[in-house]
Amino acid sequence: MTYRPARRLADIEPFHVVELLTRARQLESEGRDIIHMEVGEPDFPTPEPITKAAVAAIQGGKTLYTQALGLPELRTAISDFYRERYGVAVAASRIAITNGASGALNLAFAALANPGDEWLLADPGYPCNRHILRTYEGCPISMPVGPDSNFQPTPAMLRQYWNEKTAGLLVASPANPTGTLLTLAEIEALAAVCREKQGHFLVDEIYHGLTYEIAAPTACAAGDDIWVINSFSKYFQMTGWRLGWMVIPEAYVRDVEKLAQNLVLCPSTPAQHGALAAFAPDTIAILEERRAEFRQRRDFLAPALEAIGFRVTARPEGAFYLYCDCSALADDSFTLARDLLEKTGVAATPGLDFGSNAPEKHIRFAYTTGVPRLAEAVERLRRYFGR
Amino acid sequence: MTYRPARRLADIEPFHVVELLTRARQLESEGRDIIHMEVGEPDFPTPEPITKAAVAAIQGGKTLYTQALGLPELRTAISDFYRERYGVAVAASRIAITNGASGALNLAFAALANPGDEWLLADPGYPCNRHILRTYEGCPISMPVGPDSNFQPTPAMLRQYWNEKTAGLLVASPANPTGTLLTLAEIEALAAVCREKQGHFLVDEIYHGLTYEIAAPTACAAGDDIWVINSFSKYFQMTGWRLGWMVIPEAYVRDVEKLAQNLVLCPSTPAQHGALAAFAPDTIAILEERRAEFRQRRDFLAPALEAIGFRVTARPEGAFYLYCDCSALADDSFTLARDLLEKTGVAATPGLDFGSNAPEKHIRFAYTTGVPRLAEAVERLRRYFGR
Repeated sequence: MTYRPARRLADIEPFHVVELLTRARQLESEGRDIIHMEVGEPDFPTPEPITKAAVAAIQGGKTLYTQALGLPELRTAISDFYRERYGVAVAASRIAITNGASGALNLAFAALANPGDEWLLADPGYPCNRHILRTYEGCPISMPVGPDSNFQPTPAMLRQYWNEKTAGLLVASPANPTGTLLTLAEIEALAAVCREKQGHFLVDEIYHGLTYEIAAPTACAAGDDIWVINSFSKYFQMTGWRLGWMVIPEAYVRDVEKLAQNLVLCPSTPAQHGALAAFAPDTIAILEERRAEFRQRRDFLAPALEAIGFRVTARPEGAFYLYCDCSALADDSFTLARDLLEKTGVAATPGLDFGSNAPEKHIRFAYTTGVPRLAEAVERLRRYFGR
Repeated sequence: MTYRPARRLADIEPFHVVELLTRARQLESEGRDIIHMEVGEPDFPTPEPITKAAVAAIQGGKTLYTQALGLPELRTAISDFYRERYGVAVAASRIAITNGASGALNLAFAALANPGDEWLLADPGYPCNRHILRTYEGCPISMPVGPDSNFQPTPAMLRQYWNEKTAGLLVASPANPTGTLLTLAEIEALAAVCREKQGHFLVDEIYHGLTYEIAAPTACAAGDDIWVINSFSKYFQMTGWRLGWMVIPEAYVRDVEKLAQNLVLCPSTPAQHGALAAFAPDTIAILEERRAEFRQRRDFLAPALEAIGFRVTARPEGAFYLYCDCSALADDSFTLARDLLEKTGVAATPGLDFGSNAPEKHIRFAYTTGVPRLAEAVERLRRYFGR
């Protein structure tokens, strides 16, 4: 049969960093010491109360299908979490448990995106988001964002980019790759434009919990017509378990349930049982210790990179990334990333993976490794650049 | 913001049986004894070697992201399984590990379906398949199948339904809800038509392993241009773990990998580590005992239902379902299913959930409960129908 992929494949890019990762593994297999600062994954293991709960469920035979939107007790636990942590009332019936935040975004766009609809996204941004949208035949429209707006969209930008084909807006706070936040007032201002334009508004909050000065406000506080996506991967450190959730405007709950019944059946049962322990005080105590550790790493790394000549133009208020302007040091960040890997053993992610807004000038360093290793990386970079 | 779901939602149905399930749970909470014959889930727990392997991985901290297409050692184990069980060579590089068979079908249609393309499916059939296709903007075209062709499509049907918009064919062997098989010669004949028409050919083999007279042949033996979908849910009894796999024609491996990177990141890591134990001799020994038990159930239930007046017109060669013509007993199977639940406490799935080919005349009984309970169900049905 002839090779005939769907047309959408032409618009969906692979992760460019995978090429670097493959090379990094090859170097490691040859005995080279590689410092991994390209990885978007916490280096901490899943907290023990979560793994214990999952193991108890598995050993107790709790491995059958659950309801399509997830275990009612987990949906309730998340509802309680919104009340306790944010002081916001979110009905458990509006919460869907999903296959990670990826699964949530798949369901959201399956529920909302019509072929040819345009959706506004910030550039730089997490690349999968626009590819998921494209998969459901929506058209991602990149709004270039920069230091002027702390790498976040503004109401003025929405008005500039919105046209009769525009169906909605997706933002992230904290954002990837920049780590910048939206204040509640900023979220409300974006929501107001979406309402005025009769558009949908989706907010990716998967790095919530990992903020270092101010607590990120949830978009749930800005209206129950906003779709809010979250994850157990980052703050709760359950990456490989593939579990997330989504807060759905009431009118769409039945639609998302229908889609979940048909597209996924249910999220992972062992992961859901593990996640039931995610909000317990002993788990939160572990997570808060680790958050303090992330903060120390950021506070070490940002000035050290700036001293070398990288410019951290995005205020890294959350997540575990520093998005750096490297244009004073190199012409092209992809070539730089490759060269750094070969010559210093430091792996970082070139801007190319985050969009088309001056990617060659930017590189992302993840502080998903401890301060001693970060210090070693900084030392290698210093030598490389002769600083 | 106004309620404005994507247009596809109008074509995607919920599971109708859920309404019955909700009522069944209500009756149970009132103390009624319900015999569940509506459930498409084995009643056996996940085999202990699999749960032990998963627990060891979790306790060993193996809970990080894996490669997008899954753990290389699991892909190799599946490749070995094809060689040992079927005598067919399937390169590990062609195998993608997925979020259940659902995840596999999502990736397949995301990779292949263009908006407006028509795809041929058998009716009755598993309803999610056509809904997943619709989600990626393909158009499912139902081919009514019946006892004449053992509820499977034939080359003549393909020629009748194929037109310039047709992109491909999806079949299932063993099929749900009928349990009927395709022989290798039949698969080859369908593949030949697909090749002649330059179409794609997908074969759902998620009930493989659960066959009772003859071993189901795999479509992998009929050409490396066929997409084959399988699952750890049914034979391996890992439903809630959400793990499956797909054999991909070589030319599309990179496309599916790109999609997996962007849409799912990776399948569940604990589930993958559990599945590494799925092919071990001690696991297979457990599964083969359970298969013998399923066969006993089928051999008890089929004649017992026929004695009451149900007609098992589809040869139930595999899976764990009996798809019965109930037109001699009732005018409408949905009403019948509701009445059986209320008056006898026997829950079954009405034909409505499997398509639009005479659904009112059909009802599906799952033998996912032991013979003593099946005997009790038969006794209740006998009394209900006065036989």
